[in-house]
Amino acid sequence: MLEEGEDGALTGLRTLLPDAGRAHLLGITGPPGAGKSTLVDRVVSELRRRNKTVGVIAIDPSSPFSGGAILGDRVRMQTHATDTGVFIRSMATRGQLGGLARTSFEATTVLDAMGYDVVLIETVGVGQDEVDVVELAHTTTVVSIPGMGDDIQAIKAGILEVGDCFVVNKADLPGAERVAMQLAAMLHLRESSGENWETPILKVEAEKARGIDQLVDIYEAHRAHLASSGGLVRKAVRRNERVFHELLRERTAAQALHAVEGGGEPVLAALRAGEIDPYTAVDRVLGEEHD
Amino acid sequence: MLEEGEDGALTGLRTLLPDAGRAHLLGITGPPGAGKSTLVDRVVSELRRRNKTVGVIAIDPSSPFSGGAILGDRVRMQTHATDTGVFIRSMATRGQLGGLARTSFEATTVLDAMGYDVVLIETVGVGQDEVDVVELAHTTTVVSIPGMGDDIQAIKAGILEVGDCFVVNKADLPGAERVAMQLAAMLHLRESSGENWETPILKVEAEKARGIDQLVDIYEAHRAHLASSGGLVRKAVRRNERVFHELLRERTAAQALHAVEGGGEPVLAALRAGEIDPYTAVDRVLGEEHD
Repeated sequence: MLEEGEDGALTGLRTLLPDAGRAHLLGITGPPGAGKSTLVDRVVSELRRRNKTVGVIAIDPSSPFSGGAILGDRVRMQTHATDTGVFIRSMATRGQLGGLARTSFEATTVLDAMGYDVVLIETVGVGQDEVDVVELAHTTTVVSIPGMGDDIQAIKAGILEVGDCFVVNKADLPGAERVAMQLAAMLHLRESSGENWETPILKVEAEKARGIDQLVDIYEAHRAHLASSGGLVRKAVRRNERVFHELLRERTAAQALHAVEGGGEPVLAALRAGEIDPYTAVDRVLGEEHD
Repeated sequence: MLEEGEDGALTGLRTLLPDAGRAHLLGITGPPGAGKSTLVDRVVSELRRRNKTVGVIAIDPSSPFSGGAILGDRVRMQTHATDTGVFIRSMATRGQLGGLARTSFEATTVLDAMGYDVVLIETVGVGQDEVDVVELAHTTTVVSIPGMGDDIQAIKAGILEVGDCFVVNKADLPGAERVAMQLAAMLHLRESSGENWETPILKVEAEKARGIDQLVDIYEAHRAHLASSGGLVRKAVRRNERVFHELLRERTAAQALHAVEGGGEPVLAALRAGEIDPYTAVDRVLGEEHD
C-alpha cells in the first residue's frame, strides 16, 4: 500500500490519514551528551506501565556508511525489543529523499494510524531541521544537563522557545540547580505564548528512573491542556502547512525539470561545466533567461 | 546592488559571481562544547600573521529573540574588531528566507568577491543542514574533544565523511590520545575518497594557541592538493548544483502558488480548516486533484 512515488512521497499515505490523529505526539530534543536515549527508554517503560503502546522515531544524524554501527549502539532498544507494544525506528538524516519534516511526518502518521497511543520523536536539538521536527510534536521536551559550557547555552537559546517542558537530566551532578535556575530565568524572558501553560522545569535522573513518573504526568497534563485550549488543532494545522510547503517545493521543482529538454540534463551539464551560474541555470529551466 | 527578490534571493548577487572563486573556503564544524569559537579565533590570528585577509561566517542555531544575546557572547570577535582585514558575520538559522545552503553560499560569495583571501564558515556539526554547509567548503575541519561520551560518537560518525582534517582540541585533557586513536580507526573504515589525500588528525590546544600554525599549514597543503587534483573545480560544481536545486524548489513553488486563485490562499484556508490534507492541497495547487 505504501509506495514511494517519483518524488519520494509515500503515495499510499493519504489513505492512512483518516486513521491518524489520535496519538499523542511527543518530541524530545537536547544537545549531545544530555542522556536523551536513556530518558526515552525510561519514558517508554513508564508509558508501558500505564498500558500505553508507544512508537519511537529516533532521528539519527548518521552517515550511510556508519548508520549500522550507530544502530548497533542503541542498547536501550534491547529493553523493549520483545515488547509488541513498542515499535522503534531510526531514521537517518542523510541521503533522505524529501525533507526531514516531511519524512518524519510520514513515519509519525504511519505509527499514529497503526494505533500507537503515543508516538515519540527524538532528535539532537541543534540543527534547524531537527528543531523543526520536534516543534511539530504536540508536547516538546528540551533536555539539559549540568556543566556543558557556553556553547550549550547558545543551543539552549535556540531551542528554548519550542519547549513545553524542560528536563534537567543527571540531576545528581553538581550544578543541576544552577541549570534549572538559568532555565527559569531564560523562560521568564520568553515571550508569552498566550497558551496559559506554566512551562515546568523538572530535575530527573534518567539512569535511575528518578522523576520519570512526574514527567509522564506532565505529558498527560499538557495533552489535556492542549485538548481543552484548541492547541491540538493549532499544532495539526502548523504541521500540515509545513508538509504542504515542503511537498510543493519538491513536486514543482521535479515538474519544472521534467518539462524541459532532457529532464534538465543539458542545463545541469552547462552548470557543471561552469558555463553558467546556478541563478542562470534556474532561469533557463524556468524559461526566464536574462541577458 | 544587492537586493532581496520576492523569493529572498539576492538578485544582485550574480553580478558579483565573476569576482568570486579566488578565496579559500574553510569549513569548521564539530559538536557543542568542542571549543570551535576559540579555535576559529586562533586560526584567524594565524592567517592574519601570514598576511591573509579573512571573512568569517558563523552559523548560529539561534532563535530570533535570543540572537542578540548570543552575538553579545561572542567575545572572540572583539579580538579582531578593529582589524579591517577581518570581517565577521553571524547568520541565524531560524527565520531565514531560503535554505541554509543557499543563504550561506550567498554570504560566502559576497565575501569571496570582496577579495578576502580566506572565507571561514563555522557551524555546529549536528544538524543535516549545518553539515551540508561546511561540506560545501574546500577544506573541512571536524573538531572533537576528549570525554564527550557515546552521543558524541554518533555525531562524529555523522560528520566523519566530510572531514578533510580532524582536530582534537583541548589536547591537554586526559583521553585526547584515545580520541585521536578512535578517529584514526574510524577513518580507516571510511571508504577512500580516491583523492589521494592523507587525512590528518591533529591535537591542538586552541586556548593556548598550540598547534594552530601546523593546522594552518595543513590548510595550505590541502588547498594546493585540491588545486593540483582538480578538487577545487569538483567542489565548486557540487556547491553550484546544490544551490541550483534549492533555488529551483523555492522559485517553482512560489510560481505555482502565484498562478492559482488568490495566491493559493483558498487552498491554504481549506488546509487550515482541516477540510483537505497536505497531499490534496498540493494536488489542488498543481491542478491534479484526485477523487
